[in-house]
Amino acid sequence: MTDVLPPGATIGILGGGQLGRMLAIAAARLGLKVHVFEPGHEPPAGDVALKVTTAPYEDADAVRAFADAVDMVTYEFENVPTSALDLIESRVPIRPNRKALATSQDRADEKTFLESLGIDVAPWAPVDDRAALDHAIDLIGTPAILKTRRFGYDGKGQSRLAAPEDADAAWQAVNTAPCVLEGIVPFEREVSVIVARSLDGQVVCYDPAENVHRDGILHTSTVSDQVARRIKADAALTAGRIVNALDYVGVMGVEMFVLPGDQLIVNEIAPRVHNSGHWTIEACVIDQFQQHIRAVCGWPLGDGARHSDAIMTNLIGAEVDAWQNLATGGGLHLYGKAESRPGRKMGHVTTLTPKA
Amino acid sequence: MTDVLPPGATIGILGGGQLGRMLAIAAARLGLKVHVFEPGHEPPAGDVALKVTTAPYEDADAVRAFADAVDMVTYEFENVPTSALDLIESRVPIRPNRKALATSQDRADEKTFLESLGIDVAPWAPVDDRAALDHAIDLIGTPAILKTRRFGYDGKGQSRLAAPEDADAAWQAVNTAPCVLEGIVPFEREVSVIVARSLDGQVVCYDPAENVHRDGILHTSTVSDQVARRIKADAALTAGRIVNALDYVGVMGVEMFVLPGDQLIVNEIAPRVHNSGHWTIEACVIDQFQQHIRAVCGWPLGDGARHSDAIMTNLIGAEVDAWQNLATGGGLHLYGKAESRPGRKMGHVTTLTPKA
Repeated sequence: MTDVLPPGATIGILGGGQLGRMLAIAAARLGLKVHVFEPGHEPPAGDVALKVTTAPYEDADAVRAFADAVDMVTYEFENVPTSALDLIESRVPIRPNRKALATSQDRADEKTFLESLGIDVAPWAPVDDRAALDHAIDLIGTPAILKTRRFGYDGKGQSRLAAPEDADAAWQAVNTAPCVLEGIVPFEREVSVIVARSLDGQVVCYDPAENVHRDGILHTSTVSDQVARRIKADAALTAGRIVNALDYVGVMGVEMFVLPGDQLIVNEIAPRVHNSGHWTIEACVIDQFQQHIRAVCGWPLGDGARHSDAIMTNLIGAEVDAWQNLATGGGLHLYGKAESRPGRKMGHVTTLTPKA
Repeated sequence: MTDVLPPGATIGILGGGQLGRMLAIAAARLGLKVHVFEPGHEPPAGDVALKVTTAPYEDADAVRAFADAVDMVTYEFENVPTSALDLIESRVPIRPNRKALATSQDRADEKTFLESLGIDVAPWAPVDDRAALDHAIDLIGTPAILKTRRFGYDGKGQSRLAAPEDADAAWQAVNTAPCVLEGIVPFEREVSVIVARSLDGQVVCYDPAENVHRDGILHTSTVSDQVARRIKADAALTAGRIVNALDYVGVMGVEMFVLPGDQLIVNEIAPRVHNSGHWTIEACVIDQFQQHIRAVCGWPLGDGARHSDAIMTNLIGAEVDAWQNLATGGGLHLYGKAESRPGRKMGHVTTLTPKA
């Protein structure tokens, strides 16, 4: 197998959630086959994949058989154990590469990496034990947020300190895991940029989306020239610098805060397709999922231009029960999850309006 | 099971080609599962379906098991044997209904039906034997086209008569099957309309596309206000009359000729999603495939408005070998067919431009 996967080749995807599902759909559209590896039963991506392996990542035989059955492996999920990745990489390419994965898996490594590129991040300090937390509070001040270095998503593994007295409670709330303490920056808005880099180094960036969270979970992403005003070029340059430095191949989500004076600081990076890029399905000819598949298969990237303004709204938990009404409102996506639990992403809706 | 299939329900699709593949993708996007029934091996739709039954339509046990495994059956292919349809319909609903299928399966019945609605068609006469062909030539004149009543697609089962002397050769060319003789009308252009009708009778029509054929196979479909000029309302009204008269549920493709003076005559109807509607994937929030799934599942239809002008170009046979160049040109769709044969539809590309 050369670096380029031709139509008919098989892509392995680690993780079978909604991102894997939308990746599998994008792959099918491009004539590629998909084999999903997912520990959980009845994964959403399984409905649209040619094959599914159901096994824990620690099952070396299953991982080996999976790697041997596919031409390249990508992922929708960062927290795959190193042992599985080592095994896969000894047999087929992993894209995006291990460096990107390792960097984004650890908040301290990620911030150190970003700072090494001259990219601004919120004030932060590593917190490996209870004493280090006191030291970090002295350095950063409060209010601040204690975040576990690893395995955080959708606001999980985080605890807010309003004052130094909250240190004990926060340290217990994160289960005394290795953390970083982040200063709270006076941001005006949160934005994210979806950026793609091809095997031969071509970089394509989508317009920035403005993100609104509720209870730590993304609620809406809005894209318009109004959102992009002034920050568009800086955001794209920052995202481009990150993917180039990592020799990245695939789509990355880069979350940023916009400070007064339009200063951008990077909050975090996700080495995969990203919830805040779902608007691209309706508003662009080539969406983030197709762009990722093109990149990891060594294909030319597509145009990242959008033809419309867009608002994407996540459907969390029981919100999805209103599917009949939601169906009248725009592009509806349901992820095929059997059970709607509080805080669980069940689907999303995107509405378009002509570019203002 | 009520008339409405909720998310998580299973749709049965008869036929596993590219239309079934794109229907399966649309169903997945809406949180529905798909079970494909297809006699051929490795059907394109199988890559994105939860289940595939590989069996001939004449295999009653397989058809019965398929019907019992799904909540409703739709089709991407008109020429399913009556015996299979009878068996399915005794167990689960078939949408669009049998009347639509029967009418469109037979060119003579279709034309009689259209005329009964006061819709113009090309001059025609039934040809059941060689003597009837002479009579039809007297009636219609030449040039004319002899078409088999059943099983024609992509120009197959057709023979052109330049003069009455061609009658013998034409009759042999169609294998002496029951036919209709159609007069050739002096059309200025060919257009088609994709129309959808919901279970509760709501009708949504997409803008007409102008179609150009090569060697009897659709080459391009172009959509713009320029194409729609003057005929848009008439085309939508005609399509609406047809689906209402059939108590139709689902998406239908209606092919029309535009004669001088913008008179529309209906060439043929297809009781399914249609190649000339593929442009809706990129140019509309709700494409023809999602619209069909919504309709047959008893869901509300979506908006049929387009946000852009579009040109869809089919990739026939070896044209698909240029996939790497084609990938740079717009929304590329490859159907996952292992072998590219001359005349075989292998994929398509859609390019958008802002509405003029």
